[in-house]
Amino acid sequence: MSYEELTIIGRNPVLEAFRSGKTIDKLFILDGCQDGPVKSILRESRKQSTLVRYVSREKLDALSDKGKHQGVVAVAAAYDYAGIEDLFALAERKGEDPFFILCDEIEDPHNLGAIIRTANMAGAHGVIIPKRRAAGLTGTVAKVSAGALNYIPVARVTNLSRTIDELKERGMWFVCGDMDGTMMYDLDLKGPIGLVIGNEGSGTSRLVKEKCDYMARIPTRGDIDSLNASVAAGVLAFEIVRQRIRGL
Amino acid sequence: MSYEELTIIGRNPVLEAFRSGKTIDKLFILDGCQDGPVKSILRESRKQSTLVRYVSREKLDALSDKGKHQGVVAVAAAYDYAGIEDLFALAERKGEDPFFILCDEIEDPHNLGAIIRTANMAGAHGVIIPKRRAAGLTGTVAKVSAGALNYIPVARVTNLSRTIDELKERGMWFVCGDMDGTMMYDLDLKGPIGLVIGNEGSGTSRLVKEKCDYMARIPTRGDIDSLNASVAAGVLAFEIVRQRIRGL
Repeated sequence: MSYEELTIIGRNPVLEAFRSGKTIDKLFILDGCQDGPVKSILRESRKQSTLVRYVSREKLDALSDKGKHQGVVAVAAAYDYAGIEDLFALAERKGEDPFFILCDEIEDPHNLGAIIRTANMAGAHGVIIPKRRAAGLTGTVAKVSAGALNYIPVARVTNLSRTIDELKERGMWFVCGDMDGTMMYDLDLKGPIGLVIGNEGSGTSRLVKEKCDYMARIPTRGDIDSLNASVAAGVLAFEIVRQRIRGL
Repeated sequence: MSYEELTIIGRNPVLEAFRSGKTIDKLFILDGCQDGPVKSILRESRKQSTLVRYVSREKLDALSDKGKHQGVVAVAAAYDYAGIEDLFALAERKGEDPFFILCDEIEDPHNLGAIIRTANMAGAHGVIIPKRRAAGLTGTVAKVSAGALNYIPVARVTNLSRTIDELKERGMWFVCGDMDGTMMYDLDLKGPIGLVIGNEGSGTSRLVKEKCDYMARIPTRGDIDSLNASVAAGVLAFEIVRQRIRGL
């Protein structure tokens, strides 16, 4: 599996890529260009919530290595995202209660890679990331994951708090880390669970936090604000593992 | 506190820096230069096990920004390392059993910074790193530590396994992470303890591992080899915290 970015050049190739279900990370359109075919491409891009940039001809020439771009260039991750069903399927195949890790706007690819590595090592069945304001599956993420990306499905969703609602309807519980929460040892973290890891700077967003059933406090006792996001993910994930194998 | 590197230029300034006890990371000497004053500087550098490089006049000119280097340029960390006694003093001031984290050849400054941050947040009283084959306290380490370097002493020692012997004589026990070790929940990790974190690629070195009283297994269950070093440090450090506050 290659994790390089893939550049797709020209109107038809880009439209076909969208229609085949390929995840397009970024779409570059020639500034001012809005004829029929371009409108079709933009319509497809909205379904995926793809980031669209209007750029100059020079920029498009550079992006396409002077290829025949016809005013349209798209950048896709060569890595294909999984669907939520793939995560449930992995849990079922292992005969275990689902255990997912949700990244709420993790921006640093090193952190996302380390979290994916931790998720695999903690026996989680998948990682869920949002499409916006978050690191995607770049080459750096794949490298830092130390191969874990080959084993654990990563799904990308448009709206994380809506996804939490949907997963709750399927019997899952959600926990996020919080300095003012309940000591993590006192929470029952067994059963079907989603662990939410917040943004490096601002933590879990208000909307997502309100959806969580539990707020778990790691027993930190230092002079600074918080643990690194991927370290916090590791400590919380292995508290879930401990409870699963040892009980409360 | 500034974490920038400090360049010291010229024979007397470099000799004074050594004699004042300043930690010199690297010493650059003009290739072929071996008169009396340079020999004195080299003698001091051996006491500190400073890395010495013999370089061309052009390299020295560049390092010193064409200053009067007289064939000698040294690079020092502006951050001053602590002594082992500073670590014990912090434990005593807090009225706690000593809890140190020892990094056995951690090479990635991001990992070292994250481990220092974790050490502070887990209430450890200091971090010990070796002088050779390991990341030192660079600006990147300070930045990734998120301010923790201001609160937790970091000592740098010449020989980590000899340091472990000395600390054992003072009543400390040592534990390292190991896939083939005893499940970490089954070890008694309370009391005065040193947690050893191994190299990112090769793990804890044989010599250091042989000095450890316990090998602790994190209950990983994934498809890849290991956790990220700073995540493993976090999981093990907080198992020590759990046992300290909750018992076995």
